Amino acid sequence: MSNPLKVAVLGCGSVGSQVVRLLRAQADDLAARIGAPVELAGVAVRRLDAPREVDVPAELLTTDAMGLVCRGDIDVVVEVIGGIEPARSLILAALENGASVVTANKALLAEDGPTLYEAADKAGRDLYYEAAVAGAIPILRPLRESLAGDKVTRVLGIVNGTTNFILDRMDTAGSGFDEALEEAQALGYAEADPTADVEGFDAAAKAAILASLAFHSRVTAADVHREGISEVTAGDARSARDMGSVIKLLAIAELRTTEGEGGHRDEAVCVRVHPAMIPRSHPLASVREAYNAVFVESEAAGQLMFYGPGAGGAPTASAVLGDLVTVARNHRQGTRGVGESAYADRTVVPMGEARTRYHVAIDVDDRAGVLAAVATAFAGHGVSIQTVRQEGRDDDAQLVVVSHEATDAQLAATVEELRGMDIVRDVTSVMRVEGTEE
Amino acid sequence: MSNPLKVAVLGCGSVGSQVVRLLRAQADDLAARIGAPVELAGVAVRRLDAPREVDVPAELLTTDAMGLVCRGDIDVVVEVIGGIEPARSLILAALENGASVVTANKALLAEDGPTLYEAADKAGRDLYYEAAVAGAIPILRPLRESLAGDKVTRVLGIVNGTTNFILDRMDTAGSGFDEALEEAQALGYAEADPTADVEGFDAAAKAAILASLAFHSRVTAADVHREGISEVTAGDARSARDMGSVIKLLAIAELRTTEGEGGHRDEAVCVRVHPAMIPRSHPLASVREAYNAVFVESEAAGQLMFYGPGAGGAPTASAVLGDLVTVARNHRQGTRGVGESAYADRTVVPMGEARTRYHVAIDVDDRAGVLAAVATAFAGHGVSIQTVRQEGRDDDAQLVVVSHEATDAQLAATVEELRGMDIVRDVTSVMRVEGTEE
Ligand SMILES: NC(=O)c1ccc[n+]([C@@H]2O[C@H](COP(=O)([O-])OP(=O)(O)OC[C@H]3O[C@@H](n4cnc5c(N)ncnc54)[C@H](OP(=O)(O)O)[C@@H]3O)[C@@H](O)[C@H]2O)c1
Ligand SMILES: NC(=O)c1ccc[n+]([C@@H]2O[C@H](COP(=O)([O-])OP(=O)(O)OC[C@H]3O[C@@H](n4cnc5c(N)ncnc54)[C@H](OP(=O)(O)O)[C@@H]3O)[C@@H](O)[C@H]2O)c1
Repeated sequence: MSNPLKVAVLGCGSVGSQVVRLLRAQADDLAARIGAPVELAGVAVRRLDAPREVDVPAELLTTDAMGLVCRGDIDVVVEVIGGIEPARSLILAALENGASVVTANKALLAEDGPTLYEAADKAGRDLYYEAAVAGAIPILRPLRESLAGDKVTRVLGIVNGTTNFILDRMDTAGSGFDEALEEAQALGYAEADPTADVEGFDAAAKAAILASLAFHSRVTAADVHREGISEVTAGDARSARDMGSVIKLLAIAELRTTEGEGGHRDEAVCVRVHPAMIPRSHPLASVREAYNAVFVESEAAGQLMFYGPGAGGAPTASAVLGDLVTVARNHRQGTRGVGESAYADRTVVPMGEARTRYHVAIDVDDRAGVLAAVATAFAGHGVSIQTVRQEGRDDDAQLVVVSHEATDAQLAATVEELRGMDIVRDVTSVMRVEGTEE
Repeated sequence: MSNPLKVAVLGCGSVGSQVVRLLRAQADDLAARIGAPVELAGVAVRRLDAPREVDVPAELLTTDAMGLVCRGDIDVVVEVIGGIEPARSLILAALENGASVVTANKALLAEDGPTLYEAADKAGRDLYYEAAVAGAIPILRPLRESLAGDKVTRVLGIVNGTTNFILDRMDTAGSGFDEALEEAQALGYAEADPTADVEGFDAAAKAAILASLAFHSRVTAADVHREGISEVTAGDARSARDMGSVIKLLAIAELRTTEGEGGHRDEAVCVRVHPAMIPRSHPLASVREAYNAVFVESEAAGQLMFYGPGAGGAPTASAVLGDLVTVARNHRQGTRGVGESAYADRTVVPMGEARTRYHVAIDVDDRAGVLAAVATAFAGHGVSIQTVRQEGRDDDAQLVVVSHEATDAQLAATVEELRGMDIVRDVTSVMRVEGTEE
């Protein structure tokens, strides 16, 4: 067998400790699959004396991550520190020093991916990051390779386990948001500061990565329209139930075809993260608890779904090691896998141009002509109504309107007009509706 | 851009015609992704004048498939003829002539895969076959690459759309097998001669391919224990419902760990295709109509599921073209993708040693001591009972027993003993139970 392949692991927390554990537990299989044994050359951490889930020999531990990466004999660097710096500088240094890189760092990739992809191209090395989206679920490799002969038209993902757990509790136990969040925190599904998950920042980073790969274009987190779930109420969850739907936080990346000048067809990308009602018959509706799933629509393959654990040390480490095997094989053969490609160079349309549907609940005066007035407001903005349900309650009434597809701007303008109408006491809930055919 | 890549397509039926169509429709994207344009160099068929779903220029059509493959300038051969011969000879000739090969031919791979894999190794060329299992669903690439750093312990697949459609109708409409089969035939989901699907031959071929990849061992169709669904009755479907379960035809590949000599742990493979009851809460239970899905359990990643259309011209062609892009890139770079590996060389255990659970329905005399006698029969073969349900009916009674896990041989012997007992009028149904924890 060949010379050992030297691997440096940067970070030894939830994910890093499982990477180190699996490198040992699976050593024989990894060697057989790569064609060379893997040697753990060093593990960089912040605190040498912190308790760890795995035993790391003292001589392998270092706080000098940059020194490890630049040692000159490292073949593959696994970056599982997270965050922007020093992760970015370490990855760039690794590539410059001839190493290939595997990372799980969605925040960095979504913020500054192109810098890293260019550095990998320049160095002629691999940069793989399956673990960055939906943890253990193989989704980037299928998008990048399995669907390379097809045309992906839409990706709908449940890519954040914390928010899926919370929404699932609100659906099944009737909990309010705060109560469900507390439960998620108690069970370790949500962090003490849940902002990144609950407000959709984590999902938006993943949406940017998915959109880039699916549409061969450069999409960063800043391009992603983002709304979290903190304003979803128990009432919204009930309304969804009444409609035979369920609320999920979706990361959505869609191809939008528009007629451009002179009949030329323009294809643009629409990327967004927001809570949405989906019908219970949709495959994503049955994704429970903290599980993740990504639903892909493409022209020839039709509808595909990929399901599994979206986080956790061991599942994420599984994805990291899958990449490590591929990268290591390539490294040994002096070749590279598929690099990033942004050849299609599609523009990202602003949220106002996204085509969606709205579910709107409106408290109105209970008098004649109300429905006509509301319908006129929708029509005035070019939004056609699919269904209206009217529910009398004491002296006022509630209208629940589900629209047909229209631009988000048209829908938002309709809701704004509704809020200003005399007969409208309150617009109590506005929620997008996804996953249904017109 | 580089010289065009010459592709020969063998067969222009359901799949081949869609491959040819997509090669044209996606030409620009394929060229961008491969780094060179794809040139359709020839299409081999049996009948030059047959009506086709796609226009093929007359000068590209040929009945001399071997001549096309051996022309000397073909870079990639796509084999979508099917069957053993001439497909095998054509693939071998293609590899010998320096072409890489993409095929959808599960029958050939399951019968004689090793011959092909060795030929590909010898030629230093790629042999890819994602489309051979579960059509458009990316499952082989994830197993082979994404999970390469993990240890797969079990694969449970719904890999035949025809039988899933039939069982789904039996479940939801209460149809009998014959009625459901006729409906499947009327809708084009089943062929006039449905044997290959209904008797599990098609699923067994796929099970062999999945087991080989998941366990890095050589498994052929002959190693797969196979039972079809033609004996599943409307009563079985009802019993499953009563238990909160549903019957699916499963392709199962499991790793079996046994204590070998001197405490050494032996790992063997168990591969089988049979109808089984699975709980409705299992992710596979909600796979409806002719859809396919593959559920994978691995040590680090946990439970993953891959879902989508398992057949059809366009979906299957999507998988073929995904492989084509990978193979074409490798071909241009003078490298190869991951070849087959059978390094683990695990043995396949006979069905009698498989560990399963049984659901047994028994018509018995309605008299005292019957339950005790039946329980004794189970215990006598070392099978412990999980639940018994007793239903009185006129002067006889029915017992429904669900066992704990035992070897298939123990369970089969128990059923045989039951059949011979005086108090037992008939064993009306025997069905394995899968997808539950002990
Ligand atoms: N956890 C998951 O389920 C999951 C899932 C998907 C992706 N990811 C991604 O995986 C990455 C790692 O996540 P994690 O949950 O494992 O994080 P974590 O538990 O917080 O671990 C971070 C590790 O990085 C080390 N570290 C921090 N700053 C460092 C520095 N300047 N130099 C060297 N080491 C440093 C820490 O050292 P000390 O131990 O000494 O403090 C710690 O070992 C992140 O990008 C995350 O987004 C995580
Ligand atoms: N159909 C699916 O949904 C599906 C899904 C997964 C995998 N597959 C696999 O894909 C392969 C093709 O299936 P298919 O459904 O496309 O089959 P098909 O519709 O029967 O087409 C077979 C094609 O092969 C041609 N052919 C037959 N014998 C030939 C020979 N000796 N030389 C040259 N051409 C020959 C036929 O020519 P003529 O047209 O002139 O008769 C026809 O075009 C099979 O291995 C199948 O298992 C199919």
